[in-house]
Amino acid sequence: MLSFESDYTTGAHPYVLQRLIDTNLISQPGYGNDEYCASARERIRAACQCPEADVRFLVGGTQTNSTVIAMALMPYEGVISATTGHIAAHEAGAVEYTGHKVLTIPGHEGKIRADELTDYLETFYADGSHDHMVQPGMVYISHPTEYGTLYSLAELEQIAAVCREYHLPLFLDGARLGYGLMSLRTDVTLPDIARLCDIFYIGGTKVGALCGEAVVYTKRNTPACFVAQIKQHGALLAKGRLLGIQFDVLFEDDLYFKISRHAIEMAEKLREMLTRKGYRLFLDSPTNQQFVIVDNDTLASWKDKLAVSFWEKYDETHTVVRFATSWSTTEEDLAALEKIL
Amino acid sequence: MLSFESDYTTGAHPYVLQRLIDTNLISQPGYGNDEYCASARERIRAACQCPEADVRFLVGGTQTNSTVIAMALMPYEGVISATTGHIAAHEAGAVEYTGHKVLTIPGHEGKIRADELTDYLETFYADGSHDHMVQPGMVYISHPTEYGTLYSLAELEQIAAVCREYHLPLFLDGARLGYGLMSLRTDVTLPDIARLCDIFYIGGTKVGALCGEAVVYTKRNTPACFVAQIKQHGALLAKGRLLGIQFDVLFEDDLYFKISRHAIEMAEKLREMLTRKGYRLFLDSPTNQQFVIVDNDTLASWKDKLAVSFWEKYDETHTVVRFATSWSTTEEDLAALEKIL
Amino acid sequence: MLSFESDYTTGAHPYVLQRLIDTNLISQPGYGNDEYCASARERIRAACQCPEADVRFLVGGTQTNSTVIAMALMPYEGVISATTGHIAAHEAGAVEYTGHKVLTIPGHEGKIRADELTDYLETFYADGSHDHMVQPGMVYISHPTEYGTLYSLAELEQIAAVCREYHLPLFLDGARLGYGLMSLRTDVTLPDIARLCDIFYIGGTKVGALCGEAVVYTKRNTPACFVAQIKQHGALLAKGRLLGIQFDVLFEDDLYFKISRHAIEMAEKLREMLTRKGYRLFLDSPTNQQFVIVDNDTLASWKDKLAVSFWEKYDETHTVVRFATSWSTTEEDLAALEKIL
Amino acid sequence: MLSFESDYTTGAHPYVLQRLIDTNLISQPGYGNDEYCASARERIRAACQCPEADVRFLVGGTQTNSTVIAMALMPYEGVISATTGHIAAHEAGAVEYTGHKVLTIPGHEGKIRADELTDYLETFYADGSHDHMVQPGMVYISHPTEYGTLYSLAELEQIAAVCREYHLPLFLDGARLGYGLMSLRTDVTLPDIARLCDIFYIGGTKVGALCGEAVVYTKRNTPACFVAQIKQHGALLAKGRLLGIQFDVLFEDDLYFKISRHAIEMAEKLREMLTRKGYRLFLDSPTNQQFVIVDNDTLASWKDKLAVSFWEKYDETHTVVRFATSWSTTEEDLAALEKIL
Repeated sequence: MLSFESDYTTGAHPYVLQRLIDTNLISQPGYGNDEYCASARERIRAACQCPEADVRFLVGGTQTNSTVIAMALMPYEGVISATTGHIAAHEAGAVEYTGHKVLTIPGHEGKIRADELTDYLETFYADGSHDHMVQPGMVYISHPTEYGTLYSLAELEQIAAVCREYHLPLFLDGARLGYGLMSLRTDVTLPDIARLCDIFYIGGTKVGALCGEAVVYTKRNTPACFVAQIKQHGALLAKGRLLGIQFDVLFEDDLYFKISRHAIEMAEKLREMLTRKGYRLFLDSPTNQQFVIVDNDTLASWKDKLAVSFWEKYDETHTVVRFATSWSTTEEDLAALEKIL
Repeated sequence: MLSFESDYTTGAHPYVLQRLIDTNLISQPGYGNDEYCASARERIRAACQCPEADVRFLVGGTQTNSTVIAMALMPYEGVISATTGHIAAHEAGAVEYTGHKVLTIPGHEGKIRADELTDYLETFYADGSHDHMVQPGMVYISHPTEYGTLYSLAELEQIAAVCREYHLPLFLDGARLGYGLMSLRTDVTLPDIARLCDIFYIGGTKVGALCGEAVVYTKRNTPACFVAQIKQHGALLAKGRLLGIQFDVLFEDDLYFKISRHAIEMAEKLREMLTRKGYRLFLDSPTNQQFVIVDNDTLASWKDKLAVSFWEKYDETHTVVRFATSWSTTEEDLAALEKIL
Repeated sequence: MLSFESDYTTGAHPYVLQRLIDTNLISQPGYGNDEYCASARERIRAACQCPEADVRFLVGGTQTNSTVIAMALMPYEGVISATTGHIAAHEAGAVEYTGHKVLTIPGHEGKIRADELTDYLETFYADGSHDHMVQPGMVYISHPTEYGTLYSLAELEQIAAVCREYHLPLFLDGARLGYGLMSLRTDVTLPDIARLCDIFYIGGTKVGALCGEAVVYTKRNTPACFVAQIKQHGALLAKGRLLGIQFDVLFEDDLYFKISRHAIEMAEKLREMLTRKGYRLFLDSPTNQQFVIVDNDTLASWKDKLAVSFWEKYDETHTVVRFATSWSTTEEDLAALEKIL
Repeated sequence: MLSFESDYTTGAHPYVLQRLIDTNLISQPGYGNDEYCASARERIRAACQCPEADVRFLVGGTQTNSTVIAMALMPYEGVISATTGHIAAHEAGAVEYTGHKVLTIPGHEGKIRADELTDYLETFYADGSHDHMVQPGMVYISHPTEYGTLYSLAELEQIAAVCREYHLPLFLDGARLGYGLMSLRTDVTLPDIARLCDIFYIGGTKVGALCGEAVVYTKRNTPACFVAQIKQHGALLAKGRLLGIQFDVLFEDDLYFKISRHAIEMAEKLREMLTRKGYRLFLDSPTNQQFVIVDNDTLASWKDKLAVSFWEKYDETHTVVRFATSWSTTEEDLAALEKIL
């Protein structure tokens, strides 16, 4: 069955696997103290043009979000997110499990607005009983968002300015960061993100790795006792090399960017094909996720041939579905899809 | 200074204090095993017309909400509340601190609607990825709400029916329950609440006690290891007698109801006075809290004479403030207020 | 039935009740912003000879321990305690519920030793894998201990010196502090405790109040967002006046010390009586709790006449029981006891 | 540098890597719903001779321990462990972070004793104030233990009998299970463990995998909402296939057992060599970890040639170190070691 269901249905980029084989029998210290982690860290620092950045490797997206957020907040603080933010909606309460509230503001195709963030904060501090409320302690955004949309550089700068004004760290969830950076319609670079965010992560799981997310602390703001803390969260791998090796390969010779660009090219063709075939887009996504309104009969007809993701009910007779391309999507996949569509 | 700031600005009903004195030197076991707790429990069961009810005494409202909710939920469950619910907005994240998400649905002057609750639950269970979300595990309502409004019996019955259909316990926060039950405009009785809710509490702090909330488990559903659990939450009083004595007095000779009715009578006079004086009500509250839109100059002029609660900004030149009456409000207070208004 | 079961079987000192009556109808702001709290705070500062101390009022012992400890620790830190410490053994896991481990070192009749504390810390920091362990973040002691024993001033100074060396705050649980300070066999004063401890509390519940513990932050070290944090823990009373009034009375004219001394005098007579009657003491307690080894037949014969606390099994035919005196113990109680013994 | 530092210093068994390559481009559903997980599950069920077993895959040992324990316990329960148990000593408080206390009983070279477990439970239930304590809710053992030791079948049966009597689930941490099962000195089989334990896991990380632990629920006792719960703990991998593939290979043609046996053979030779060379064993371990008392000068001389693990200080001039063999240890490694020794 042809799958455009998600960007995590296949394994890892072949170069990643090859490196696992090449390094397999070399003894290395555990817990991220291996030389591959060190090399990957160095490459990522360079790609971010942020020599003072600290880079740490965690295993998956929800783990990274909840662990990073819990380490950054004081116990009485919460994290501000769009109502549609992954941490607010689709992480099974992982943030709340660590004792912190997700404070929601409106999402606009997944994005928050600097002015609404300011309103939220002004209202909070103007409220005489705000010491009976959860104190805002961080701002969370995703880029690309859960809807595949992207912040412009100007938007990011505005949000970052509000965060600075209110002394709130800005945390960017980059589970699909490569697909955002390589979009044909973005003016945001990795160094921009490193400059504007206090913490962000570069997603590996959905961009060529078997697993792994590279967390970047850009402002000499790595949490104290980092190893103890991530172990406390069950997020410390004995064989940290598994993460180091993968990111070392992905950030060698711009592989991360090249394979992301490939996925974007596939997505552009996919969107063109969908439009050409008369499908209606649910929103205009410049990244690897494309959201399409499909009538339910058509959707039913795909059942055994084509896997896509249910997104939400559109109306009684239509459904919003998601098509995702990835580093592993091929021209053949697109050709096969065209036949089905 | 004259105070209509809240219903917790004075001490306790004189009968409560007298009983504290009368019983003071009688030795009793600790931790709620005293005879006053037993007597109070029996009186509350009778008032609820619910002989199988279990009644337990906790100290304050936020403590009761977070402890009761945490004991009722599985770790992966959240509690559904109006966005304006006290647990969602004004308890400093006490529920989240126990690891549980507050799942919000719209509030309508503080009240949730059965149809919107149904929508929420239907959408949740229809979502194929709901195992990546927080499972709903309880429904929380307040009565009176944070806006002083009340559910009608029909509304409560509809909400309770939805809860039963989805096997969700219904929990009613009755921090001001007396003022709801004694409203001139309610068709809901204490036995109705005991019949429709799985758990609710009868507020003492705001209705004649120094402190204390009586939690009623109506369906043989007291949590296991109750004493250990409330101790774990820091909610077990060594001198449990303090709570037992107070509720024993409040539920003797209908004192709780009589003093609540008095507060309602004062509130009715207050509202009449406000209206008569040309003040605009923010909403129509049938209980002891009255919300008024005041122009900022007037408000400033009260500064040293009259204490009321800031509620929210209405517009650039007006503010919503709350007046609260209580068991201790007197005709003299109203007369003094009239002069100021 | 005559009760020496504990120091919390009766109500409050009559002066406390009288003040509740005297102040009952005076309107005061809620949440500890009342004038009684302010006055009590000032009196306690004076009694501690610590003008920069911050004093806050919480409701009960377990609540105070878990809330204070959770506020003081970073998420990855634990609190060091004797294995027999109240937080380690008899608080239903309240500290762990906040996510923190209680790190135990040996207890000697309830007391820790400075040298063993040093050993623990040296071993911890010498262990190359200590970043896989819980970081020590605070030292907890109780005074009097759970066994009624007391630290000497020299012992306290040694422990405080270790804490300073390792940058660990020293927290003293003074649930029965009055009975320790007024012991006939102590060289420790309240100013000593304020000088040596970073945080401690003065127990009210067991020393003349209905409820309440006064937490003293001696080093300008009150946790940030204190009100929000204690509300998050369910520890913020709406009618904070209840706590303020009680401590204001207890620290007026040295009442706290006088009633504690009375309990000590009763305990000395009790011990003399027990020894005279041939009872064997389990340990030598200089405070209001006396631990006695009783043969099981004797214990059975007291069943309907005399309440004492089971402490632990001594051997097959003997049991350790606790007798406690308090501010409310009378000469008549002792005379009645003598008849039974 | 030659490394006997641990059993997680190299990558994965070559068959595991080969299978990752072979399956790399086959699209599979995420979150453990892939066919490799299904196949691995079936193979593990067969190896356990437990057709009703449910098998779930998590990423690492600490994550598995804390997630499994938190899912099994009620909020007021703790888990019983040896004081030296990994969860008690070396997991950075991961269990406490989920709100649960680790209740410790003595460890004897890492093992608990059934009689001491019984004593603990009898004493607990005999204590009249046990509702002020943490309720025991599970028993944790490791096999092999942290000291490389093993339970005999008789010992396991005795512990399991106590657990059944007290209705406590028995949870076995098998992070190194293969090395225990393939010891030359064990009478315990995998089906024995499946029969006697309620939950256990088969360690992959230390036995041939890059990462991964296979949790086996043997008594139709999988926790409700399993996927939501492990996601809440940050333990759900998007590419669950990574875990499924690895365990599918490890349980094909007994690979797991064969490579474990190899490590044991290497360990036996290692021990023989150490003894022959005059080294003193710290304890008698029948598994892949060997603990040796080394004088500090010798240890210093190894610095740049041989990596071993510091275990603990033995005396002023000696140190206990750990040598570990694994599936990847070779005869050449042993020969190189002999030269150094």
